[in-house]
Amino acid sequence: MRLLYHLPHSPFSRKVRLVLAEKRLPFELRVEKTWERREEFLELNPAGTVPVLADENGLIISESAAICEYLDEAYPDVPLIGRTLAERVEVRRLVSWFDLKFNHDVTRHLLGEKIMKRVAGRGQPDTGALRVGYANLKGHLEYLGYLAESRKWLAGGTLSLADFAAAAHLSALDFAGEVDWSISAPAKEWYARIKSRPSFRPILADRMGGVTPPAHYADLDF
Amino acid sequence: MRLLYHLPHSPFSRKVRLVLAEKRLPFELRVEKTWERREEFLELNPAGTVPVLADENGLIISESAAICEYLDEAYPDVPLIGRTLAERVEVRRLVSWFDLKFNHDVTRHLLGEKIMKRVAGRGQPDTGALRVGYANLKGHLEYLGYLAESRKWLAGGTLSLADFAAAAHLSALDFAGEVDWSISAPAKEWYARIKSRPSFRPILADRMGGVTPPAHYADLDF
Repeated sequence: MRLLYHLPHSPFSRKVRLVLAEKRLPFELRVEKTWERREEFLELNPAGTVPVLADENGLIISESAAICEYLDEAYPDVPLIGRTLAERVEVRRLVSWFDLKFNHDVTRHLLGEKIMKRVAGRGQPDTGALRVGYANLKGHLEYLGYLAESRKWLAGGTLSLADFAAAAHLSALDFAGEVDWSISAPAKEWYARIKSRPSFRPILADRMGGVTPPAHYADLDF
Repeated sequence: MRLLYHLPHSPFSRKVRLVLAEKRLPFELRVEKTWERREEFLELNPAGTVPVLADENGLIISESAAICEYLDEAYPDVPLIGRTLAERVEVRRLVSWFDLKFNHDVTRHLLGEKIMKRVAGRGQPDTGALRVGYANLKGHLEYLGYLAESRKWLAGGTLSLADFAAAAHLSALDFAGEVDWSISAPAKEWYARIKSRPSFRPILADRMGGVTPPAHYADLDF
């Protein structure tokens, strides 16, 4: 059976779970507490990070970017990176936007302080970091809203990996109660559409020790 | 003419320059001082980062990962991301290793403090950051040496994007005189091999205002 090593609050793990589910590829999940630096896991991925996918063909794939490119090449029936060169350029630009820039500006501040510190037992959130994260989140939600308003999906006419990268970060932050959806109505409407997809259900059902998500987290008509 | 917006010390720009040269695609360079946040440039890439490639066909491609994937798809004659699924998985894992992990552990500390602060006029290097960068560089050079010793090139039998990602970071650090090559003989031998390639010549000829590289920087038999 295909196996994904993951952490429930990791946006990069969530992105891969969404891609696997959209492609209707069955898989099992195994929580990997990366901060324990388990020997056998480091042999699979010397970087020590999740997600890591052990596919049925025996391949071990580390790094979420490599996993998503691999899945689109190995299982092309539901393509998620676009068809034309121009579409693929825009999908990958936005995946980098969310996985690098949004992660740097927002996720590492808010999720890092509120959830990861608690899960790994590393003390209290830093209020300065939280302030920076909230300020940056506003600009990012406005940009996402601008994309969602001018296009059907974030990268263009077709649902793509760009939507799942964005939704992975936002759902992890939403779980922690950190997203003020009133900032952008089009961003909220886009998120309601994507979270209604069957691929999202297992993510909305996730619960993590010691953290209670806000009432709207799993509500499809929030 | 194909145009690459870049910064001479940016490892991500260097990686794309190497890929373009290896594929024998002629291009012009334009230095973009990203910290000035030039309006016309932000219209090309709202993230405001280099590299950005304006290709001859009119496509604008932002983010180095998207550019390298695009170049391998649009100009496949010299493939740099591997042929089989397993090769492609390993090339992309190592590209993420250098562009995410090495960048996080080493480049942002050493290059960020020594070069980028000076270029953008943002004050003196932080000695704590430099110490962290040097300590992490040692472990990374040993891992690179281990790969170089057990394989012909970093990702396997064929020269690939993994080598260029690694060489881009290391050449930028070497320019700043930050690499102690005595840490790993196999890493040094691998770097001597890759820097002898014709694609490397323009990078070794780069000079940046106010920074003098060490004597061995452009020496192919260093």
